[in-house]
Amino acid sequence: MSDFQSYVERLGRRAREASRRVAVLSGQARREILRRIADSIRQGRGELLEANAKDVQSAEQAKLPVAMVERLKLNDKRIAAMADGVEQIAAQVDPVGQVIEGYIRPNGLRIQKVRVPIGVVLFFYESRPNVTSDAAALCLKSGNAIILRGGKEAFETNRAIVRMIHQALKSADEGLVDAVQLVESTDRALVPLILKQDRTIDLVIPRGGESLIRAVVADSTIPVLKHFTGNCHIYIDRDTRGMEQQVRQICVNAKTSYPGGGVCNAVEHLLFHREAAERLLKNVCEDLAAKGVEIHGDERTRVLYPDARAATDEDWDTEYLALVVGVKVVDSMEEAIGHINEHGSHHTDAILTDSKRSADEFAQRVDSASVMINASTRFADGGEYGLGAEIGISTDKLHARGPMGATDLTTSKWIVTGEGHCRG
Amino acid sequence: MSDFQSYVERLGRRAREASRRVAVLSGQARREILRRIADSIRQGRGELLEANAKDVQSAEQAKLPVAMVERLKLNDKRIAAMADGVEQIAAQVDPVGQVIEGYIRPNGLRIQKVRVPIGVVLFFYESRPNVTSDAAALCLKSGNAIILRGGKEAFETNRAIVRMIHQALKSADEGLVDAVQLVESTDRALVPLILKQDRTIDLVIPRGGESLIRAVVADSTIPVLKHFTGNCHIYIDRDTRGMEQQVRQICVNAKTSYPGGGVCNAVEHLLFHREAAERLLKNVCEDLAAKGVEIHGDERTRVLYPDARAATDEDWDTEYLALVVGVKVVDSMEEAIGHINEHGSHHTDAILTDSKRSADEFAQRVDSASVMINASTRFADGGEYGLGAEIGISTDKLHARGPMGATDLTTSKWIVTGEGHCRG
Repeated sequence: MSDFQSYVERLGRRAREASRRVAVLSGQARREILRRIADSIRQGRGELLEANAKDVQSAEQAKLPVAMVERLKLNDKRIAAMADGVEQIAAQVDPVGQVIEGYIRPNGLRIQKVRVPIGVVLFFYESRPNVTSDAAALCLKSGNAIILRGGKEAFETNRAIVRMIHQALKSADEGLVDAVQLVESTDRALVPLILKQDRTIDLVIPRGGESLIRAVVADSTIPVLKHFTGNCHIYIDRDTRGMEQQVRQICVNAKTSYPGGGVCNAVEHLLFHREAAERLLKNVCEDLAAKGVEIHGDERTRVLYPDARAATDEDWDTEYLALVVGVKVVDSMEEAIGHINEHGSHHTDAILTDSKRSADEFAQRVDSASVMINASTRFADGGEYGLGAEIGISTDKLHARGPMGATDLTTSKWIVTGEGHCRG
Repeated sequence: MSDFQSYVERLGRRAREASRRVAVLSGQARREILRRIADSIRQGRGELLEANAKDVQSAEQAKLPVAMVERLKLNDKRIAAMADGVEQIAAQVDPVGQVIEGYIRPNGLRIQKVRVPIGVVLFFYESRPNVTSDAAALCLKSGNAIILRGGKEAFETNRAIVRMIHQALKSADEGLVDAVQLVESTDRALVPLILKQDRTIDLVIPRGGESLIRAVVADSTIPVLKHFTGNCHIYIDRDTRGMEQQVRQICVNAKTSYPGGGVCNAVEHLLFHREAAERLLKNVCEDLAAKGVEIHGDERTRVLYPDARAATDEDWDTEYLALVVGVKVVDSMEEAIGHINEHGSHHTDAILTDSKRSADEFAQRVDSASVMINASTRFADGGEYGLGAEIGISTDKLHARGPMGATDLTTSKWIVTGEGHCRG
């Protein structure tokens, strides 16, 4: 325990020191480092595959779910995509130093609010190896240091990726190596200790299951930006005449386009306006069932589609993260909005409608990070929003909301310039 | 205890309901409500003075410090200033609905990131009555509801101010009254309970002493934006030839322009470059001493100004919040920046210099919410930055940093519009 204590203190202190060096690099220097990281990942292909094979073997021996093992696996294509991802982040506009506001006050004081790095980010995440390189690249792009705490199942792979990153950092400046550090133990006893390093770590981003996130929030004295998975809805409005194909396609896409449906922006519940239900509910349910989706319906749903299982009260608060969808018939958009704000997770919710007024009202009143109008909930994603990549999708309201890219890893600083100004 | 439990749940629930009503008001309607509040405060002058007299009497009986009683006192001028403050906030640009970013993706998806209200804000604060009306006005301006928890010493005054606000809200719409609520008990046992209402309250802003803020952070399951007071510095650079008057005036202004020096943006420590010390230290210390300021100096300071008391290690981490200043001689700007980042509170720090290079480097490397160049630290203030008013000065890095106005009381929402878009 006391070993862990000194270890996490050292991690934090080193990250803090390195963060001060990264923060003063020019945008060009940070871009060049990211390009070197991409090269280093490409050249380290053999080493990465070897390390990954160990993880995959352990995962298979531990009989982890097949889908999880699949996500964990690296191959030439995935390694190339990792390197390309880092280069895409390198090519983006530099957020550091941007002037958010600037003006001269009547007394002549010049006021500027500029974007600056946050400092040190602690990142908890699971399985997919590209998250390691994406997160490190986003933090370096925005002038921060990062401490990575990946899942146990990807430990050897993550170590190898961080070795590639270190080679690139070293080739630029030995003092930058600690800007990307991997927690070298997957022991859970370490977690509460690192979450108390509020003097050296500025922000915690936990991305994973609900229990992980709740544990982090409970233990942390560092501000936390939560990235919960989502209980997403699609509301099918009354005004959907002539939209039958669109409605059917979007509902199927939102539930099934990610294999197994286990992703935060997949739809979990469909709410049909009663008039739309008459026209569309049966067909939508049949399309979904044909894709292997299990339907849990309320009473009015089961009248129109008797094959649905009876939904319980619990259904409406459930994120299935599986090929299951809850279906409910509502009497009005008012009722749909109320249901979403009460039972949803404020992640991503969609309306399908031909009415401009309904679309506007839904977008205004649904209290979610992303509101989709006539589009699949699956678009809620940093890449799809053009952010290059994302460190996660914030379900918090403060600081960042929805997909988080490099800009959301910055804070601001007021720079006030006078000529001997004193306050009256 | 269980009475408090149901009370705080009701407070939160009512605020949440009211917040949904405020959020959909037009900017014009919110502006009109603020104007009515200003009128209501003006018309309620008699009632306000009467309530305030009770608080002042209790404060005098309890032998509170004279400065505190002074801050608490209302008079015609202060009431007029409160009403004017609300009108100034009304007249500001409306932050709600602003499009922060907007673009069309290659696949035709239209993406907008818009500013929306946060929801419900819980605000802890102390003594000065105008803070009550400012905070309520800033929250309404930004489409939020607020729960106010003021200091015990201003309880009657705050109740009266909230009565005035309620009259104005009622005259607009009975359903809006709960958008501004005062916690009707100053019992501390209630605090941990209200800090657990994370389903109905979105943000806690504690503004007050360090012990209050630490207690709030420890108990809260709601995100907290901390507003600590400041351990502010002025670094007097080597390149200050010909700036003697400026340096002397700014140092005196930064320490003494607020009566008693007990304000977060007052300077607490002066760091002189050794060459500047030779020229300026003695005069600056004499000017400060003439204003009644006690000087705590390091050894090199005491050589140049023997009247200084010897500073201890503890001095450098101390916010005196009084007419005391610590003075230290440093060998370089590097040393000054290191000292500020280690001992400061990241609130506001200033450099006095004629060197552009020094100014730029100091502004980049000092990790504080506000950096002043050739200006008094006392300018770190929402009003001075042109925000109309402030709900406080955030010493956090996330969400808001430095003086916080109405815009910082908003969050964002992504609104994504397609034409039947499915994700590939």
